[in-house]
Amino acid sequence: MKLLYPTSLKLDVQSIEGFPTSLHPYDVKKPIPEDLIDAEVLVTWTNSADNLKDAAQRMKNLRWIQSLAAGPNDVLAAGFDTAKVKVTTGSGLHDHTVAEHTLGLLLVAARRFYEMRDYQLQGRWPAHLGGPQPDRPAGRFTTLRDARVLIWGFGNIAKTLTPHLVGLGAQVRGVARAAGVRDGVEVYAEDRLAELLPQTDALVMILPGAASTRHALGAERIAQLPDHAWVVNVGRGTTIDEAALADALEAGRLGGAALDVFETEPLPEGSRLWKAPNCVVSPHAAGGRPQGAEGLIVDNLRRFLAGQELRNIV
Amino acid sequence: MKLLYPTSLKLDVQSIEGFPTSLHPYDVKKPIPEDLIDAEVLVTWTNSADNLKDAAQRMKNLRWIQSLAAGPNDVLAAGFDTAKVKVTTGSGLHDHTVAEHTLGLLLVAARRFYEMRDYQLQGRWPAHLGGPQPDRPAGRFTTLRDARVLIWGFGNIAKTLTPHLVGLGAQVRGVARAAGVRDGVEVYAEDRLAELLPQTDALVMILPGAASTRHALGAERIAQLPDHAWVVNVGRGTTIDEAALADALEAGRLGGAALDVFETEPLPEGSRLWKAPNCVVSPHAAGGRPQGAEGLIVDNLRRFLAGQELRNIV
Repeated sequence: MKLLYPTSLKLDVQSIEGFPTSLHPYDVKKPIPEDLIDAEVLVTWTNSADNLKDAAQRMKNLRWIQSLAAGPNDVLAAGFDTAKVKVTTGSGLHDHTVAEHTLGLLLVAARRFYEMRDYQLQGRWPAHLGGPQPDRPAGRFTTLRDARVLIWGFGNIAKTLTPHLVGLGAQVRGVARAAGVRDGVEVYAEDRLAELLPQTDALVMILPGAASTRHALGAERIAQLPDHAWVVNVGRGTTIDEAALADALEAGRLGGAALDVFETEPLPEGSRLWKAPNCVVSPHAAGGRPQGAEGLIVDNLRRFLAGQELRNIV
Repeated sequence: MKLLYPTSLKLDVQSIEGFPTSLHPYDVKKPIPEDLIDAEVLVTWTNSADNLKDAAQRMKNLRWIQSLAAGPNDVLAAGFDTAKVKVTTGSGLHDHTVAEHTLGLLLVAARRFYEMRDYQLQGRWPAHLGGPQPDRPAGRFTTLRDARVLIWGFGNIAKTLTPHLVGLGAQVRGVARAAGVRDGVEVYAEDRLAELLPQTDALVMILPGAASTRHALGAERIAQLPDHAWVVNVGRGTTIDEAALADALEAGRLGGAALDVFETEPLPEGSRLWKAPNCVVSPHAAGGRPQGAEGLIVDNLRRFLAGQELRNIV
């Protein structure tokens, strides 16, 4: 049995060895070579659309694709026969890196590092941002200490992010499809949003892209946030109605927005978000660095060979 | 006995009551009013130089000044008779806020939020900073995970900062006058710097301002850092030789510098640091928000009345 692994990231291949499976590197931007076309397992990372389309047509023995992406939209769109081919995601491999970036965006917002940069580029000292400051003033988001952070989309990334926020003194609550206490955080169902949003200093969105999450944050829910609240999005761009967000920012009805994802990426030249006040544009940089891929591949390969259910199955 | 407290910050005065001491608010920017001039205790925060000079001359009964600043240089320069007047600092009141800002500067550096902002202001998408990235590449500072962070000046702020860095996966070591293990961190004496600096991805400086710390980081020690290392300074600006730092940045012999303090503040118009590559200018914004001042005042007032040694004595 053959497993093909991508050369588009550095894998410790030795730690995957020891199974009755031969391991073969492949180039994710080119067609699968003829001598590898009979592989049963394909690990994907940043494959080109052509590569995946070609693989879907030519790899007749393929039974399992292990994507290293959190959301393997590329694989799902390539035309694999999903009756025969199982697809598993890289969910969990991006938790640390996305959590770190999200924490960074929250601090950029609270500490106004973006505004300091604007001043620096003009050679001006932003005196109003330095020196003696009011401590934790009501109605402003100036620190994570005592800040009310609401995480909408409370999965693994949120669980990784939360301890950092709590350590800095934030009060964290979650929103997810199912309510309950997770890792010590009170998680509410979405029908409680109207009550939760007005009590929020920073809303962190980590929703997946799907028809059901499209424009989850629209004009109505933005209006339920306090005027000083920040919106941070590290999930998918489609989950925010960007026109409504730009309206609110331009009207000063929001503290700001720090966005790592957009409805269209790269963010189009004509987008109002480039210049909207207190809008921070990050180029889908939160993830993109899978960590611990070998462990997931080994675990799932063992399950695959034993005929057990795979982890992270789509 | 009279205690004068400043109106330049919001204090919960009720929590200081209950001592055989009358509490009186005063304006830190004006001369002390005649009816308060006989006070024995003065709490200071952002007092004007004139106010302090006037107080030093006219407050003949003064026995103790509780500054809320971490470094009460203003009080020490005002001419109080230190044989008669004890001075205590606000050390410890700024730990959380300085630690948060320092963490923010480290993330701005690692995640290159300053560079993203430069692109945003030009309406350009910084594609090289987003999408798939190498994970923890050697010889670059792109994440706190596995980053080697050296904190020079390992006091209370460092102790507060360290758990956040460790939580994000950093390897933290300290440098201080006295070696030893503090809060689980290996702290080395300064004579080990030549060995430690080459093993550093991010150097965090939290040194106090003093003759002995002037230009602690000069050309020679900067040259001992790897070319990709970042320097973060939240201590005092005088501890870095800014000309040597600008030289290194301009020559690409350092990853970057994120500075909250400067030899002269505001940073003078002619400083090369404004435009040096990968230099982030923050306007002395890390502290400036004393937290828990009431607890320190109460504790020291109790000690003062009992004739015990005061906390944070200069």
